[in-house]
Amino acid sequence: MTTLPFCPACGARVERRVPDGDNRPRRVCVSCHVVHYDNPKVVVGAVCFAGERVLLCRRAIPPRTGYWTLPAGFLEDGESIDDGTHREAHEEACARLAIKGLLGVYSLPHISQVQIISLAELLDDAVAPGPESEAVALFAPTEIPWDALAFPTVRWALERALATRGASVVVPEVRVRDAPSLVPDDG
Amino acid sequence: MTTLPFCPACGARVERRVPDGDNRPRRVCVSCHVVHYDNPKVVVGAVCFAGERVLLCRRAIPPRTGYWTLPAGFLEDGESIDDGTHREAHEEACARLAIKGLLGVYSLPHISQVQIISLAELLDDAVAPGPESEAVALFAPTEIPWDALAFPTVRWALERALATRGASVVVPEVRVRDAPSLVPDDG
Repeated sequence: MTTLPFCPACGARVERRVPDGDNRPRRVCVSCHVVHYDNPKVVVGAVCFAGERVLLCRRAIPPRTGYWTLPAGFLEDGESIDDGTHREAHEEACARLAIKGLLGVYSLPHISQVQIISLAELLDDAVAPGPESEAVALFAPTEIPWDALAFPTVRWALERALATRGASVVVPEVRVRDAPSLVPDDG
Repeated sequence: MTTLPFCPACGARVERRVPDGDNRPRRVCVSCHVVHYDNPKVVVGAVCFAGERVLLCRRAIPPRTGYWTLPAGFLEDGESIDDGTHREAHEEACARLAIKGLLGVYSLPHISQVQIISLAELLDDAVAPGPESEAVALFAPTEIPWDALAFPTVRWALERALATRGASVVVPEVRVRDAPSLVPDDG
């Protein structure tokens, strides 16, 4: 995490200490005494099917530039999960979706993320790279570039989507990624 | 949201503007130019069964002091969803759980929260109020204090848990709470 030594409320210094009545260290202002909490961020995204093909985006930005990922990104303040999922698909792949349900909920405590991945159908094939994508493409299951996926959770979600394809009911999986990857900037 | 006019990285003023390449206003430092993002927080909790009875906690703290809620709270940095769910149940009700799966994922965009509620079984009946609870109790379905629940999502989760009780497969529901409540401090 970036070092954040100043109080965003008053501009004085913060110290890292356990506030009264709490049980873990927080950023606490030495002047105005406001406690600033740091919490995990939510990433939303989707496995988007067009028939049997799935949409992937080749990343134009770090981390993992050049590798394939799902359209996904940080949920914004004031946004619902579905709204964020639609927005990311549109921003990264100019894609329009119908969201069908939850596919996976992934905890990544080592980077303080919760990823909420939905299952979706593309409303049409008119996908195109947005500013954060070098390319976008629809892959048949046998064509998925498994060795060039950007993040482990992309593999998890794709595997789950393919394993449950055609099922009348999809129970989303809950998984935790405990260990940091060997890939330094892996998400 | 609290007004946060200072840069936590360098202590200078921030302005609220759309950074280059972005599409929504952020806190941007006028001196070091770091962009500070505000994102929704994750609340984790559980509907915890002991046989047919469910665990509820009467809140000792605002908002909604005196009303009944599920053991739930903000996910902490570096914590998995399940770890946070166990921690909250222990802090608020001294409860020990076996988590069975997801029950509901609720978006509350008006307060920038995502609530991830699990289904759990208590490992034993030895529950007791923690510092944030006035009381804890196990309620049979017919005894649940529906008119004294703290938050709408507590009702959603309880209704979902009771409706799916005994089902071999529970598909978690995804819901959005669009409108602010009439209760001013409602979560």
